[in-house]
Amino acid sequence: MDPISFETHPDRYHHWRLTVDGPIATLQMKVDADHPHRPGYELKLNSYDLSVDIELADALQRVRFEHPEVRTVVFTADLDRVFCSGANIYMLGSSTHSFKVNFCKFTNETRLYLEDASAHSGLRFLAACRGTTAGGGYELALACDEILLVDDGSSAVSFPETPLLAVLPGTGGLTRLVDKRKVRRDRADVFCTLAEGIKGKRAKDWGLVDDVVPRSKWDQVVADRARALAAQVADVAHGPAVALPPLAPTVDKDRVAYKYVTLQLDPAARVADLTVAAPDGPPPADLATAELWSLRAFRELDDALLRLRFDHPQLGVVRLRTRGDAAHVLAHDEALAKATSGFAREVHQLQRRVLKRLDNTARSIFAIADAPDSCFAGVLLETALAADRFYMLIDGDEAIAVRTSVANAGFMTMSSGLSRLQARFYGAPEQVSKVLARGAEGPIASEDAERLGVATIAADDIDFADELRIAVEERASLSPDALTGMEASLRWVGPETLETKIFGRLSAWQNWIFTRPNSTGEHGALTLYGRPERPTFAWTRT
Amino acid sequence: MDPISFETHPDRYHHWRLTVDGPIATLQMKVDADHPHRPGYELKLNSYDLSVDIELADALQRVRFEHPEVRTVVFTADLDRVFCSGANIYMLGSSTHSFKVNFCKFTNETRLYLEDASAHSGLRFLAACRGTTAGGGYELALACDEILLVDDGSSAVSFPETPLLAVLPGTGGLTRLVDKRKVRRDRADVFCTLAEGIKGKRAKDWGLVDDVVPRSKWDQVVADRARALAAQVADVAHGPAVALPPLAPTVDKDRVAYKYVTLQLDPAARVADLTVAAPDGPPPADLATAELWSLRAFRELDDALLRLRFDHPQLGVVRLRTRGDAAHVLAHDEALAKATSGFAREVHQLQRRVLKRLDNTARSIFAIADAPDSCFAGVLLETALAADRFYMLIDGDEAIAVRTSVANAGFMTMSSGLSRLQARFYGAPEQVSKVLARGAEGPIASEDAERLGVATIAADDIDFADELRIAVEERASLSPDALTGMEASLRWVGPETLETKIFGRLSAWQNWIFTRPNSTGEHGALTLYGRPERPTFAWTRT
Repeated sequence: MDPISFETHPDRYHHWRLTVDGPIATLQMKVDADHPHRPGYELKLNSYDLSVDIELADALQRVRFEHPEVRTVVFTADLDRVFCSGANIYMLGSSTHSFKVNFCKFTNETRLYLEDASAHSGLRFLAACRGTTAGGGYELALACDEILLVDDGSSAVSFPETPLLAVLPGTGGLTRLVDKRKVRRDRADVFCTLAEGIKGKRAKDWGLVDDVVPRSKWDQVVADRARALAAQVADVAHGPAVALPPLAPTVDKDRVAYKYVTLQLDPAARVADLTVAAPDGPPPADLATAELWSLRAFRELDDALLRLRFDHPQLGVVRLRTRGDAAHVLAHDEALAKATSGFAREVHQLQRRVLKRLDNTARSIFAIADAPDSCFAGVLLETALAADRFYMLIDGDEAIAVRTSVANAGFMTMSSGLSRLQARFYGAPEQVSKVLARGAEGPIASEDAERLGVATIAADDIDFADELRIAVEERASLSPDALTGMEASLRWVGPETLETKIFGRLSAWQNWIFTRPNSTGEHGALTLYGRPERPTFAWTRT
Repeated sequence: MDPISFETHPDRYHHWRLTVDGPIATLQMKVDADHPHRPGYELKLNSYDLSVDIELADALQRVRFEHPEVRTVVFTADLDRVFCSGANIYMLGSSTHSFKVNFCKFTNETRLYLEDASAHSGLRFLAACRGTTAGGGYELALACDEILLVDDGSSAVSFPETPLLAVLPGTGGLTRLVDKRKVRRDRADVFCTLAEGIKGKRAKDWGLVDDVVPRSKWDQVVADRARALAAQVADVAHGPAVALPPLAPTVDKDRVAYKYVTLQLDPAARVADLTVAAPDGPPPADLATAELWSLRAFRELDDALLRLRFDHPQLGVVRLRTRGDAAHVLAHDEALAKATSGFAREVHQLQRRVLKRLDNTARSIFAIADAPDSCFAGVLLETALAADRFYMLIDGDEAIAVRTSVANAGFMTMSSGLSRLQARFYGAPEQVSKVLARGAEGPIASEDAERLGVATIAADDIDFADELRIAVEERASLSPDALTGMEASLRWVGPETLETKIFGRLSAWQNWIFTRPNSTGEHGALTLYGRPERPTFAWTRT
């Protein structure tokens, strides 16, 4: 299959229409049934697949960077009786397990971007559900700040996944229902087994939606609520607008090369080399440009991670390196932290989201500092702390070192709410202060970095190459499934949040259910959906 | 297969020796290879299976009730070079998925009992690991307050699950490593992929054990530490000692009947009826008897739940009823809450553990109040709040009602740390106060209970029977896997703890991994363990 492109532009959308009218943007879902992500199914009734979600993710990014005047984004649909019928079942039923899991992870990340923008960027999201809102459609609505449902005697919100497909509402649905909207758990239990869903007054009484509105008043109420939500927004900085140009990487069979990021693939060894370059110079006086390293390099890293996830599922180990002048990285971090513009805030938050995407990438990640121009500094040190291990070469003149910046001091939180240093030293906060204090004095060379607990292993020339080679080979020889479960248990030490519950608890159960014959077997409910046969279930409860 | 008995007694143990010497008890693991839970494998090298763990759970219960003088429990082994080599691999490899999952859940619950007793009963646990401590053996040690490892140049602690078996250390191991012992996550990553484990000084430096001790000083140091731990214990009430008699239920093909609890099985409908009877009268003046309803009925309920889990995996729905005089339940709750003896505390805590076992039972539980002698009152109301739904019949004279007691006011926490009323009204704490205030005034009849949010559905005579029948039939027709994942996502609303992370995040991943060909397929690592063939892995990462 051809490589997937995660880049698009509103001019090329097949499935959404983005319009901006002053502080109100509208994202109208109008899925083109004839443009699925791959042949073999039709995207009827505003059902979605990866292509639809890639456009949605793009639209959210563009609203944040290109339309800083927007305060409220209204989700609507072009159909008369359907808002969105969720992820396309035929697509799911005909996908590999690996694709299903990665698809769900990507859609989950995109839903979380709504909540991230609401919490941090002065944006509000309104789900204007003028018709059936089922499955993933309702999960999209749940990620919004407010849900309006048309009261027409038939339109309902519903989670038919369990009763009809023998799977879960796995795009955050179960978690958001009880943890975010605080629907009573016994009512949630009833709702999640009711294929036809719940409509009208009861939907409102149970807290499934915020209001139900008759058709006659629909347009007026939606417009009013959109304006009211815009008015709620705290006074945060906005803009200037910066258009996001295509990244246009060079994509060869075994290599994806961007301006700052390179992904080199070694399918035989099942290893990928991911390298991030530092800026070429100090930050410009006016940060507001799409070519700003802090923005461009992280957009590239994001794109590379998505390609790795979807196009190269058999590469189990990532060797992560950085190269360039650490001083330029630190200068960019400082400039970004000092800037007060809305644009700078958005760049900062994009970096945080990309680092979370790295945390959440189910590959073994070994960060490696093995050359004098290695530059795990500031925001790039975060990538080493996101890795499962960090190997550092001890060189005679201590040129190989890590450096800290304001980017390590708390802003770049993981999904757990902890910074990566806090997670590294969970239960020993004094170590975090020690590392930051030492980093403020200057570069921390390999031996010191190991002593301080930043490097996992520091070794000298005699041992380094062999030790690393053996570690990578061993890692690449282990069962991918066990490693995914192991890493998912070790990476998110400490507190759990709605976000970690979605990726840990909910997704882990969904992955299990996706492997079970009751859903995906020959006679499973997902497999047989839309066919005349009834599924047959194995009844053993586990 | 014959029904499993979860009852045993130290006189009949095959695998442990319990000795008590004043404040120090010793639990010596001496697994009898020739007494496995079922034929087909040998329990070599202190490996364990369900029978071994049933005895361990029994021993912990007996220490709490029958040996209140004990302050420290020391875990030792009778072998010279092995402490415990973990769960028996041949047993796991030859078990059904359902059995594996239930086995892991039971062993996890038993490990948590150590931490529960340490936190609440003035007991301390010392793992005295004089030899190899691998896999589940190290997980047992991790559940203790302190771990000593012999420093003999060869004995190591290890998690060989991922490198050798392509599964996880799923009995809390991954979670406790980073969340409880706060081992740095990058070091934990190294440790969990090192089949031979880590020994000596490094094991101590990394925080994997609390101390390493040479053989020459072993006995002395263990004795000293046991005494020191005993001295740490806060001054809590102890005793009086009460011996726990056998429950001796009558077990027929479709019925298990105890004094207060009845489990009636309907395999054709895949439904079980679980009924708990109230005490026959008010509590005795001296509570300290094994026949006290608060103790006896909950021991019975515990045993019934285990039988349901292991012996009847195909029964998906539990109809849970109570019958008897609610006033006697409330009187027992009050007497127990007022009592200051160590025995009363232990009964109280046993009730809490049994209610957690109910929460954690992967069956759809519908509580039903449909007769005038229904008595969902106090601690029995907790069972209705643990259920997925609560159906109440509206009767003309309002005899059918729920009642609250001190047992609903906070002590009976779920694994999340929330009381069941707090979980029911997550995000609406004022509703908790409202229910408790209303309950203090007297019985809350069905309609009121529905209005207050305690009952899920209240219906009158005309609708009740049909509505319930249809709900049960529908529930029994849904995919057991999807229901397990759904209930696991809805039941633990709110905060996550080490305990919920073990049952949610870690167990969910482990369940997934158990279904993957890389572990349990024909060429999987678990299947081929001990055979000359090497496993073959599918390399796709998900």
